[in-house]
Amino acid sequence: METVSTNKAFGGVQGVYTHASAETGTEMTFSVFVPEHAPGAKLPVLWFLSGLTCTHANVTEKGEFRRACAEHGVILVAPDTSPRGDDVPDDEGYDFGKGAGFYVDATEEPWKANFRMRSYLEIELPAVIAEHFPADMARQGITGHSMGGHGALTMALRDPSRFRSVSAFAPIVSPLNCPWGEKALTGYLGADQTAWREYDACALIEDGARLPDLLVDQGTADGFLESQLKTHLLEEACARAGQPATIRMQEGYDHSYYFISSFMAEHISWHAERLK
Amino acid sequence: METVSTNKAFGGVQGVYTHASAETGTEMTFSVFVPEHAPGAKLPVLWFLSGLTCTHANVTEKGEFRRACAEHGVILVAPDTSPRGDDVPDDEGYDFGKGAGFYVDATEEPWKANFRMRSYLEIELPAVIAEHFPADMARQGITGHSMGGHGALTMALRDPSRFRSVSAFAPIVSPLNCPWGEKALTGYLGADQTAWREYDACALIEDGARLPDLLVDQGTADGFLESQLKTHLLEEACARAGQPATIRMQEGYDHSYYFISSFMAEHISWHAERLK
Repeated sequence: METVSTNKAFGGVQGVYTHASAETGTEMTFSVFVPEHAPGAKLPVLWFLSGLTCTHANVTEKGEFRRACAEHGVILVAPDTSPRGDDVPDDEGYDFGKGAGFYVDATEEPWKANFRMRSYLEIELPAVIAEHFPADMARQGITGHSMGGHGALTMALRDPSRFRSVSAFAPIVSPLNCPWGEKALTGYLGADQTAWREYDACALIEDGARLPDLLVDQGTADGFLESQLKTHLLEEACARAGQPATIRMQEGYDHSYYFISSFMAEHISWHAERLK
Repeated sequence: METVSTNKAFGGVQGVYTHASAETGTEMTFSVFVPEHAPGAKLPVLWFLSGLTCTHANVTEKGEFRRACAEHGVILVAPDTSPRGDDVPDDEGYDFGKGAGFYVDATEEPWKANFRMRSYLEIELPAVIAEHFPADMARQGITGHSMGGHGALTMALRDPSRFRSVSAFAPIVSPLNCPWGEKALTGYLGADQTAWREYDACALIEDGARLPDLLVDQGTADGFLESQLKTHLLEEACARAGQPATIRMQEGYDHSYYFISSFMAEHISWHAERLK
């Protein structure tokens, strides 16, 4: 692991780091905020998975998470959204290929060699975090935005023992039922939609996965709400399955970081309560 | 005035606007955050002047001011740092010309036609704010970063009756005594340094200007501290003149928005107390 930059912020250290990933076959960049802490202390870890077109930088610069992370003593890790580099295959659209890994392990050519964001986030990056940071890996939470909200919900639903807390901002709740999901998962996983179900929060709940609870905030003025995000599908899946869920429609908020930052502190408090 | 964008944030509205400026002869862009407020209420206004290379966007995206502005009911206005456009003269350096207006009214060619940021901020933009926003112009405060800290201190020292509160993040405290100032003020104002004194916080204090108090935060790990910012010159000028000043050296902080955002809420509280 190499350090790209560190900046003191809110009493802690906001760092950006790179490492050679065996899963993606590329150099991967991520950011970590470590609050001020007692020597030798281990802090809980909150993962933030970002949305389409984003890198680690968007939430790091615009997410406004550091004050709350410092207050609660929570590390925040922000990975990239896909492998990067000239040798990595790409698509002309913003919603498939680079910047749009959808947190899957691709099985189709030409994607399957590099687009292994699921294994990268389930296996490889957690080991890097555990080795290099004062992280208590027994206390992990996960959140994310849009495509990253999809990533957070599906990773947690597949492995509830890893995450004590789960939330999402304006998540894609069902790739099986929206154009973004249809395009990306067809490309990464092929046309057989049975293989998609482990990457679909609604399908995972329908198939029996459960979490103790989950928190979702969704803006009512979000231009993607009706066409892509379809929060009501998650509400209905949770209701049918008896999955506890706090799903809040936030009046007048859009899909931007102005929305995310407005509710970031509340999400971090939610996670901190469950990570203590 | 035209609206470029509005986004709901922290219960209020973060907007970006443009207007044709008579002072600069260009279209000027600025941002305004208006917190949620009672119908008909007028809110105090805090000006944030940005540093070299910045536009309104840097602090708008990375300044983390909205939570505190919403809490205290304070409007924040973030102007650009210079006129813009293909017809505006420029310099090859990042520290003179576009993005580096230094908040002066230039008197030298080819700058004097457009580089009128002093009059723009003293006369023209306040009138636009008063007309289009629920702003109580009898309650104004001012702050800024680096070159914008210089702008905030000098505007307030020249017109203490306008501003009830003044602070700065890592300000240039004496353009007379640093390479950034020497280059820019020679260019904008000419070689006669007597004309520079009204654009130099230390010289203004030496020449008798006074404020009720002022707040400055300066990081000790700021790479520009020794060569350009020279906080000690302001400390010495205030001490010699009996000018009350709270000047805090913040251990380990650099010149970035990670520093600014860390102390933004404290500055807004400082202003809010004096603007009530």
